[in-house]
Amino acid sequence: MKTFLLSTALLLGVFSAHAAIQSKTIDYMQGDTPLEGVLVWDDAVTGPRPGVLVVHQWLGLTAYEKHRAEMLAQLGYVAFCADIYGKGVRPKDTSEAGALAGKYKGDRQLLRARVNAGLDELKKSELVDASRIAAIGYCFGGTTVIELARSGADIKGVVSFHGGLDSPTPADGKNIKTKVLALAGADDPFQKPEDLTAFESEMRDAKVDWRLIFYGGAVHSFTQPDPGFSNPGAKYNERADKRSWADMKQFFAEIFQ
Amino acid sequence: MKTFLLSTALLLGVFSAHAAIQSKTIDYMQGDTPLEGVLVWDDAVTGPRPGVLVVHQWLGLTAYEKHRAEMLAQLGYVAFCADIYGKGVRPKDTSEAGALAGKYKGDRQLLRARVNAGLDELKKSELVDASRIAAIGYCFGGTTVIELARSGADIKGVVSFHGGLDSPTPADGKNIKTKVLALAGADDPFQKPEDLTAFESEMRDAKVDWRLIFYGGAVHSFTQPDPGFSNPGAKYNERADKRSWADMKQFFAEIFQ
Repeated sequence: MKTFLLSTALLLGVFSAHAAIQSKTIDYMQGDTPLEGVLVWDDAVTGPRPGVLVVHQWLGLTAYEKHRAEMLAQLGYVAFCADIYGKGVRPKDTSEAGALAGKYKGDRQLLRARVNAGLDELKKSELVDASRIAAIGYCFGGTTVIELARSGADIKGVVSFHGGLDSPTPADGKNIKTKVLALAGADDPFQKPEDLTAFESEMRDAKVDWRLIFYGGAVHSFTQPDPGFSNPGAKYNERADKRSWADMKQFFAEIFQ
Repeated sequence: MKTFLLSTALLLGVFSAHAAIQSKTIDYMQGDTPLEGVLVWDDAVTGPRPGVLVVHQWLGLTAYEKHRAEMLAQLGYVAFCADIYGKGVRPKDTSEAGALAGKYKGDRQLLRARVNAGLDELKKSELVDASRIAAIGYCFGGTTVIELARSGADIKGVVSFHGGLDSPTPADGKNIKTKVLALAGADDPFQKPEDLTAFESEMRDAKVDWRLIFYGGAVHSFTQPDPGFSNPGAKYNERADKRSWADMKQFFAEIFQ
């Protein structure tokens, strides 16, 4: 049976195109805080290539982000799953997740420091062309990559998947050097209209190169098969998942050209 | 000089890839009203192919739409530039254009009849795979293709470029069978926030398969080098033009697969 499956896989070319997706756990620091991320790449690709930082949702760095990193590696990028919460800090339930996400959303300077530590780690990799870097993030991570932009990070672009777009310091929009793509569920009840309006004003006032896409019929967490809690306002949506991934790829094609 | 230009063109491959873009003026009728459209295709493509209806902006059918149709033909589609106003009815200035656009926006049933006449004409072409049809439109035409959707047209998709999205009869959203992609300038002063909100509600209530993209920094008419009038709120934006065209192509790849 195993042989049959392997033969079928080879026939289908499953292993042939991306035979060697590799991953490595990486310990790194932000100040005195130990962090633990994961670097993922395709060994069949040679030479430096664009790097993509992947920032986790409120449950911390899970198998979900590693899976996205593998998908990015299959596209030929080097992906680094950043750790915002700290090594071993992996919330066991949504109560802990909410407290942790709240802590970092309430301390944007710390959040920026943490995500920049991940960016530095990605840039260090010999596999990466450090002049071609982007960052993507989901939910809490979608907020975080916008904060990365607001911190003035000199990268090519950030993509926020159903991230909160609010800012306690909208004037920081003026620091943004990178292109911004925000992807939102048109029916996301966690996305407050006033936050959207404030985000648009922030981008406009700072003359940022930005885009915002609303996916009809999609609520919060539309890319996540398991959003971590049961709520009709947070649900996987295959159509919006596929489209948002395609929109991200098109964005990368533009910024990495 | 002519020979030199021709040689240069050949060297650049201008003629090689799409050697035979053809166009034909077509007379057709809606009720008792004669209309005059233009069919454009690439003669190098064989067999039936997807068809794209192109609906003009407020100045009527101009060289602008024909150019877009040529771009579509170069992508392998058959394009038909519809005529909404009537044969020979080509506004000579913005005053006439405003009156005509206002007339049809004020009579949505007539507008739907006119655009459906164009759709029927496109479907008639032997070059077209009538099971794979889309419609795109600019400004007034962007409104019109949404009305085409609201009329219940059984096509694969519509793309509205900086079109007004308002509806006097939002309940008609329930007639929509086709996918909707609305592309808007994030700084378009002609797009009223209440119209956007109403459009979103219409799409949501009718469970339409829809998407809305906002291009940062873009105002009205962002795809048109000559919007027909001088107004800081209506201006060409190369970045948004290129991105919206790429977004349309991605949409076509999805709906025509």
